[in-house]
Amino acid sequence: VRIPVLIEVDCDGHRAGVDPESPLLLDLAAELAREPLVLRGVLTHAGSSYDCSSPEAIRAVAARERDGLVHAAERMRRAGHEVPVVSAGSTPTALCAEDLAGVTELRAGVYTFFDLMQEELGICRLDEIALSVLTEVIGHQAERGWLLVDAGWMALSRDPGSPRPGGAAEYGRVCDLAGKPLGDLVVRGVNQEHGIVASRSGAAVSPEDFPAGTLLRILPNHACATAAQQDGYYLVRGGIRIEGYWPRLDRSAAYRGRW
Amino acid sequence: VRIPVLIEVDCDGHRAGVDPESPLLLDLAAELAREPLVLRGVLTHAGSSYDCSSPEAIRAVAARERDGLVHAAERMRRAGHEVPVVSAGSTPTALCAEDLAGVTELRAGVYTFFDLMQEELGICRLDEIALSVLTEVIGHQAERGWLLVDAGWMALSRDPGSPRPGGAAEYGRVCDLAGKPLGDLVVRGVNQEHGIVASRSGAAVSPEDFPAGTLLRILPNHACATAAQQDGYYLVRGGIRIEGYWPRLDRSAAYRGRW
Repeated sequence: VRIPVLIEVDCDGHRAGVDPESPLLLDLAAELAREPLVLRGVLTHAGSSYDCSSPEAIRAVAARERDGLVHAAERMRRAGHEVPVVSAGSTPTALCAEDLAGVTELRAGVYTFFDLMQEELGICRLDEIALSVLTEVIGHQAERGWLLVDAGWMALSRDPGSPRPGGAAEYGRVCDLAGKPLGDLVVRGVNQEHGIVASRSGAAVSPEDFPAGTLLRILPNHACATAAQQDGYYLVRGGIRIEGYWPRLDRSAAYRGRW
Repeated sequence: VRIPVLIEVDCDGHRAGVDPESPLLLDLAAELAREPLVLRGVLTHAGSSYDCSSPEAIRAVAARERDGLVHAAERMRRAGHEVPVVSAGSTPTALCAEDLAGVTELRAGVYTFFDLMQEELGICRLDEIALSVLTEVIGHQAERGWLLVDAGWMALSRDPGSPRPGGAAEYGRVCDLAGKPLGDLVVRGVNQEHGIVASRSGAAVSPEDFPAGTLLRILPNHACATAAQQDGYYLVRGGIRIEGYWPRLDRSAAYRGRW
């Protein structure tokens, strides 16, 4: 048995990994170069890119991510190790980076779908978000200007998305069936199986405009979290005609016979 | 085909339903008494019980829930309808109610497991929480006093639980394998597959006390949300010896052949 290993490098003080300048890096490399392990390289994740408020700030994080990671790889090479894998991550830095020299792999994930967090970071446009939750109007609270829909956090997740001025939570933008946003309608609250739709401005939503049974699409705060609430993807080109189904993962096979 | 229906009653202005005093209640009852529908009764959910900060406040919500619901049923009976089902809900009110005369059904759910929200409401004790997530220490950030564990929001959910003084989020209490809380250790942050464990007080957690590979249990903020992230339940009496497995639901059968 040969077990390939990567050393996680912390380029932005965000979560896990060893500082690229730390003596620990070379101590770890020496430990991990022993059989049955095979030291293959370094990886990092520039999670702090999600705290940025402009593409310029993300570019700076991307430069720090690349520089720290490549620096760690160079230190290991100077100590005599082969470092074939130099793996960076995060969708914002992957799409904003200006220099990736020395990086051999990008592990960006959410770029597959994009979502409202990426749109608010300036990484994509609203009409590039390729994942939405289909929901149905199931009631109204006319005096409060609310629509009730059958997508709560079981369908959308409780991911709060980007922090908002005033701290008012939102759990998605409300669109028509073609995926076009309906004014400033947002999901204002989520319970387990109920979502509360209201306008950002506070203007009342007319029940007559959205009778019970109206189908809507919700663009998610965080596509990873929303997709994880589902068993699979129904493929559409807009509207509701389903052209295919992709299971997210085959849970039955993965778990059957495990215990 | 006969379709039994209940009318949702709004007893606390929290979410959905018709006001028990509203003329709409009897209009709805008349509409819903027509074939193929069979009007069976009323239901409510006292969601505002979750906003309470004392058992006394929950008792008051429970009284309002019962009174509003039974009043709606009585109005419908006076209008000539049979109302065999008078269904109330919410774990806090179900466990605090002093008078349930006239109620025929309680739809409490989370009482099955309890969780930190229920404990903070005074509904249960910590040692009555019967659901936890088993996790493993996978790293440390010794300078910050953090443990990294392999339970992030995919395992725990992003449910923020009860609001906390100062707004610092927590995603669970950290326990030993027997389910006993370890001092003031909490899950301070969650990413998709990483959890960050730290002490509430800010005192550093010693890596020596929790070497990589240490198994821990996390008590969840909200058992419904945490259970929904899993495929099933591993049954234990404390420790890690598994005595059984209950699938949460059979997703494969539910979805196979649907499209």
